Amino acid sequence: MSNEELYRAREEALELLKKAGIVLTPQEVENIEIADLGLNRLREIGVQIVVYVNTDRVCAKELILFPGQLCPEHRHPAVMDEQGKEETFRCRWGRLYLYVPGEPTPSPRANIPQDKKETFTVWKEIVLNPGEQYMLPPDTLHWLQAGPEGAVVSEFSSTSRDEFDVFTDPDIRRLPNQEMS
Amino acid sequence: MSNEELYRAREEALELLKKAGIVLTPQEVENIEIADLGLNRLREIGVQIVVYVNTDRVCAKELILFPGQLCPEHRHPAVMDEQGKEETFRCRWGRLYLYVPGEPTPSPRANIPQDKKETFTVWKEIVLNPGEQYMLPPDTLHWLQAGPEGAVVSEFSSTSRDEFDVFTDPDIRRLPNQEMS
Repeated sequence: MSNEELYRAREEALELLKKAGIVLTPQEVENIEIADLGLNRLREIGVQIVVYVNTDRVCAKELILFPGQLCPEHRHPAVMDEQGKEETFRCRWGRLYLYVPGEPTPSPRANIPQDKKETFTVWKEIVLNPGEQYMLPPDTLHWLQAGPEGAVVSEFSSTSRDEFDVFTDPDIRRLPNQEMS
Repeated sequence: MSNEELYRAREEALELLKKAGIVLTPQEVENIEIADLGLNRLREIGVQIVVYVNTDRVCAKELILFPGQLCPEHRHPAVMDEQGKEETFRCRWGRLYLYVPGEPTPSPRANIPQDKKETFTVWKEIVLNPGEQYMLPPDTLHWLQAGPEGAVVSEFSSTSRDEFDVFTDPDIRRLPNQEMS
């Protein structure tokens, strides 16, 4: 991504956080992660992340999704002797569509790009409006899409080890934080 | 506490959450914990709590403090083979004064009732404005006081086991959730 694109993504993420009433420190603003997952089509597929805490016991983040942006299908496997990440998504602002294993929802609301269709394999839909949350068991395939206005979502979880995440789409690279130079 | 007092405390907690832009489900509103810790002087000493998640791995809560309300000194000891609770306080709205072990702050901002003076023993002051946070190591004595407008504070932590908390004030009883009948 170009610096220009990163800069614009950050500004837009900040606007969504503002709508959610969420305040960041200047340092946190600088460190917002803009993750295009190596696909270079951020507005369609990607996620913006603010990590508040990530220790060997606890993790808390804010996820910011642009209107219609997809966080693609993945799971968090067990790492060494620790179970996979257990995570709860709590919608703070906007609307989130969450997809998990189970009976596929007829007429799901998600829109996915045709060329990536086969990389979305779980289709049980959970709709989260502000104040609503969903707890995902460890190592469960899932993907997210923001509603038409975007979404701000708190994630409460055990330790995050992004580098071990398993994405269904083989083109995805979970790169370290993209930083503006 | 009377039902009237519980009702009013809940309404006031909801107003503070609203100022912080935080939305709850109707079920969460009903379950807000109003903890006077058995002292029956809620406005001075106590805390209002919304628990989002508390599993055997992860806990996330919202703490709501009325103007000047004190959450009294306590620590979270190791329980069985698990280290004490590790917790991060993140101020979302208002202002929080947090006190931890260390060099006592000259002219601290906290106001504590004279008759409870000896139950507040750590005096290193940390001021948290919205967006600011502080991570407390396990088993560390600490206490909190809201600033003049109150405070809304997210707590991200390992598992909460309130019944094992050790309070400095021997009069305190960490009762289960007080419920309106």
